[in-house]
Amino acid sequence: MSQLWIQNSLFVTMDDALPVVKRGHMLVSDDRIAYIGEEEPQPQWLQSDVKKFDGSRHAIMPGLINTHGHSPMTLLRGYSDDEALQVWLEQKMWPMEARYRSEDTRVGSGLAIAEMLLSGTTTFVDMYDRMEQVALMTEQAGMRGVLMRGVIGLCSEEEQRAKLKDSVQFAKDWNGAAGGRITTMLSPHAPYTCPPAFIEQFVQAAHDYNLPLHTHMSETTAEVEQNVRDYGSRPVKHLDSLGFFSRPALLAHAVHLNDEEIALLAERGASISHNPVSNLKLASGIARVTDLMKAGVKVSLGTDSVASNNNLDLFQEIAMAALLHKGVTNDPTAVPAMEALKLGTVYGARALWREDIGVLREGMKADFIALDIDQPHYYPLTDIVSHLVYAGSGRDVTDVWVDGKQVVAGGKCLFLDEEKLRRDAQASFERLLQAT
Amino acid sequence: MSQLWIQNSLFVTMDDALPVVKRGHMLVSDDRIAYIGEEEPQPQWLQSDVKKFDGSRHAIMPGLINTHGHSPMTLLRGYSDDEALQVWLEQKMWPMEARYRSEDTRVGSGLAIAEMLLSGTTTFVDMYDRMEQVALMTEQAGMRGVLMRGVIGLCSEEEQRAKLKDSVQFAKDWNGAAGGRITTMLSPHAPYTCPPAFIEQFVQAAHDYNLPLHTHMSETTAEVEQNVRDYGSRPVKHLDSLGFFSRPALLAHAVHLNDEEIALLAERGASISHNPVSNLKLASGIARVTDLMKAGVKVSLGTDSVASNNNLDLFQEIAMAALLHKGVTNDPTAVPAMEALKLGTVYGARALWREDIGVLREGMKADFIALDIDQPHYYPLTDIVSHLVYAGSGRDVTDVWVDGKQVVAGGKCLFLDEEKLRRDAQASFERLLQAT
Repeated sequence: MSQLWIQNSLFVTMDDALPVVKRGHMLVSDDRIAYIGEEEPQPQWLQSDVKKFDGSRHAIMPGLINTHGHSPMTLLRGYSDDEALQVWLEQKMWPMEARYRSEDTRVGSGLAIAEMLLSGTTTFVDMYDRMEQVALMTEQAGMRGVLMRGVIGLCSEEEQRAKLKDSVQFAKDWNGAAGGRITTMLSPHAPYTCPPAFIEQFVQAAHDYNLPLHTHMSETTAEVEQNVRDYGSRPVKHLDSLGFFSRPALLAHAVHLNDEEIALLAERGASISHNPVSNLKLASGIARVTDLMKAGVKVSLGTDSVASNNNLDLFQEIAMAALLHKGVTNDPTAVPAMEALKLGTVYGARALWREDIGVLREGMKADFIALDIDQPHYYPLTDIVSHLVYAGSGRDVTDVWVDGKQVVAGGKCLFLDEEKLRRDAQASFERLLQAT
Repeated sequence: MSQLWIQNSLFVTMDDALPVVKRGHMLVSDDRIAYIGEEEPQPQWLQSDVKKFDGSRHAIMPGLINTHGHSPMTLLRGYSDDEALQVWLEQKMWPMEARYRSEDTRVGSGLAIAEMLLSGTTTFVDMYDRMEQVALMTEQAGMRGVLMRGVIGLCSEEEQRAKLKDSVQFAKDWNGAAGGRITTMLSPHAPYTCPPAFIEQFVQAAHDYNLPLHTHMSETTAEVEQNVRDYGSRPVKHLDSLGFFSRPALLAHAVHLNDEEIALLAERGASISHNPVSNLKLASGIARVTDLMKAGVKVSLGTDSVASNNNLDLFQEIAMAALLHKGVTNDPTAVPAMEALKLGTVYGARALWREDIGVLREGMKADFIALDIDQPHYYPLTDIVSHLVYAGSGRDVTDVWVDGKQVVAGGKCLFLDEEKLRRDAQASFERLLQAT
């Protein structure tokens, strides 16, 4: 058994029973939290080889949970901004993505994982293709990943079958891999890119292999209108009629919803990944987050890909969620700091049907981060939760642990060659560009 | 003459004639930029004692310009969040502020200046009282400040006279101080806190002493409605009728404006400090920034105080300006990255009627910052302007120069004792709290 003792630190646990420990200690045994509290761990609990981390200049909190993204697209950071959605997608993203080789997927994903770990995200949901490359990088980096092949079904039935098969194969091969750090889902890309019969095949496969489902839904008004035109109903009802919610289901965006849809999502127990920065940047709209939360829908936060964000610092989404919904609802009490921080931690875990991450508590998985709070923007030390949400940043993260294992130390990834990733990402991008 | 040579760096100049130098050099002589370009400076220009800065891992850009704030309120960071505006102001802010002593003003301001310099702001506009404390800290830190006493006129005429006199005295004493780094303005706090006759006295004094004017305006709908009720017109027309725009005038917030007001502001050449984060957090509303910019109004960015933000990283305002206005106008091309970055630099200078800061160009003041771009979130290096706006942060700033003098090196303030400021800020806050 390996032991780690985090000493003399300020803990933000996200546990309602004891949200903040102003000065305390945490003991980690292998991959689990063995103790957290004000007192030192009792001497008889400690092994002689217990490792120690001096947390006296740090705040310790659960690692962040990013519930929607496409990590290999990190290569396209800054390649197309400030464009209309269709220009961005059809003239810029798709042609570049069509040229991706496995190596580009691997490098783009590696760079994304480095950026996420360095900014305090310990679990990420990722949907793309060539996902074995993403899985290998996740395994190497020591991160926790919920991975799936995203499938667009605008093709022949034969191609659809091959894509579904490939998707299921990846999900079977990697579910539970990397010592349980990798789990998998199935993912038809969106109702507007997958015919109904194809979505039903995904639902069946999800039942057959006991997997959850993830899809994009109602990101733009155009897409909702098209759904009504093509299928006679709005996307929530459409997906419901295809049995989508008979499986645990995670929906990215969910920007344009009416009251009836919100009620149905709550009833079905669906999870939402709210991506405020991406939705603003692409001018897709502003999700009804306060209404969703009031209705009891399981809302969480995602960055979406770097191509529409353009970064993977989930602290920015946390701050944006806290600020934006106050502004658009004219209610300064909307999404208070603690709720915003929960969106990035324990609500993220809940959205992924996980009860063992997102909170610092005895028995939970030891996924946690240390932030350097000996900086002007954390002073005076009044309300640490407020400071983390409204003044904090992923750049304040210095050390990161996943499954009890340290993966970032002193602001450097321990199991990724960051310099090589940067160099390779540059080379990949330039090759993709020249191929135009 | 002292010389500094910034070598082999990536320059973002904000000069339309040459916006980006991908690999180049800058020569600084005393307080001015002597040369910037791709080539090395010519040998005959160089003194033997020229200092060198290796910029090969950095992006160099003009220092940011924060056009609205109240630096001593930094002591109140996180003291009151997620509250209705009147609760926040009347039950939380005002009672604490009433207990401030000179020492608290000094410490709060010092902490704010440290935070601003460390995150790349080189010029700040500040409105509070006991401003000599702010001026002394500005002088010591090496920052550039536009300082003024903010005056609330809800008092007897005798008190009004004393406040105006004090305000003018500060403006006269400190205008041009610290080798020209400090300039001053006059500032009646707001139309709803200053009777018309009192505002007219400020306008007269601004003429007498050749000073610009700064005030809060149209931050909330309630305040606009009150103006109509009390004075029969909306705030822009009201201020215009008092001669306010006969002087160079900077207006903070300007959230609630109709078309007629926007046209009048453009005609009068008024400057606006747009404070998007503060406006969202207090749920004041969302300023019509794209309409203001289209009309030719001089828009710039401010953080407002830490009590309603809760940080002083102007990069957050830059990103917010770029993102928010796309979202609320449903136009992904609104406030493109370069415009957003200009809002924080050259448009900030313009809003303060300065033609010598905010741009890197021969002859300009040498106010500039270096950001560490050897980090995952700056790769691939496609469009540096996009990266700075959508992925960058004040935490990426490592070195800062004002008037050609280095004031931050390797992420540390050279002329402020940061550790003592943090400790003193904590002590001040706790004393203020106990006095309740």
